[in-house]
Amino acid sequence: MRVSVPLRRAYKLINHGPTTLITSRAEDRRNVMTAAWVMAIDFEPARVVAVIAADTFTRKLVEVSGEFAVNVPTAKMLDVVYAAGKVSGEDEDKLTSLALATSPASIVGAPLLEGCAAWLECRIVPEPQLQERYDLFVADVVAAWADDASFVESTWRFERDEDRTLHHLSGGVFLTSGDIVKAKS
Amino acid sequence: MRVSVPLRRAYKLINHGPTTLITSRAEDRRNVMTAAWVMAIDFEPARVVAVIAADTFTRKLVEVSGEFAVNVPTAKMLDVVYAAGKVSGEDEDKLTSLALATSPASIVGAPLLEGCAAWLECRIVPEPQLQERYDLFVADVVAAWADDASFVESTWRFERDEDRTLHHLSGGVFLTSGDIVKAKS
Repeated sequence: MRVSVPLRRAYKLINHGPTTLITSRAEDRRNVMTAAWVMAIDFEPARVVAVIAADTFTRKLVEVSGEFAVNVPTAKMLDVVYAAGKVSGEDEDKLTSLALATSPASIVGAPLLEGCAAWLECRIVPEPQLQERYDLFVADVVAAWADDASFVESTWRFERDEDRTLHHLSGGVFLTSGDIVKAKS
Repeated sequence: MRVSVPLRRAYKLINHGPTTLITSRAEDRRNVMTAAWVMAIDFEPARVVAVIAADTFTRKLVEVSGEFAVNVPTAKMLDVVYAAGKVSGEDEDKLTSLALATSPASIVGAPLLEGCAAWLECRIVPEPQLQERYDLFVADVVAAWADDASFVESTWRFERDEDRTLHHLSGGVFLTSGDIVKAKS
């Protein structure tokens, strides 16, 4: 079940470095893009950075709307995660062609993808120079959600292999999140 | 064995989101700091961003030297990775107190940590506003290295559990990198 995550803890959803799907919407167009280069940069305010290349359709939608959503897909979604990174959404609605079910976000216009492990609704902090020079977008997390089957007591506990997160290596090859280990305190 | 990685492929060393150890050196002082918030942002030039908080000793050394090294530790180093994130290096040489063996980097002054899976030597691209506002450092990767027991033919293949990378959840709890999965092309 999708449950709300306090913004102070939103970083925990992506702290282990999963590959994400960025969704976006502007006017009557929407898109989804695979993005490995998304990272938390602050707890409070909850803040992330994301690389969104200049030649992508997502970049256009994000620049118009000032918003996007970070969806954290599971291993079950492996083929879709790979496919969403290979085709542009300029000429087709990728959410339709990839048969991705969505539900509305609570604050941003970008849709949230069903079946993911976590979701971060993000509003851009305008940094034109940074966007131009490095394709890097700073964004405040304005709402955060997790699947409470895997995110339990503010930490990840993956029960089944198909629930694990994906971590991109190259081409269609990914690592999944592995075992939990605990350091001596 | 530590082997050179072409800069064009340096991003692959951290693309799966491992927690890292940032080493630094300036004048006669050096330090090591656990850092989960390090990410590739470009292939060519090979470039990363790293969050280095304003109140850390690493920040001082990095601002003086303009350099740092990103070390990718293995599960075998779990206790050290956790410990290096808990204490400041201002009053003690953490590399000594944590018994971390080092070797010289090829270009930067920061030491490289023995036993890691990969190393990125980084030179800061000055972005004072970004550093001040977000504690975010952009850096060019000027040399990259990997342990060829785990990084084979430009991709990660962890043979033993103790060789896997660590991905921080919270406190002393980490996920290790898991199984390899391949998408349908």
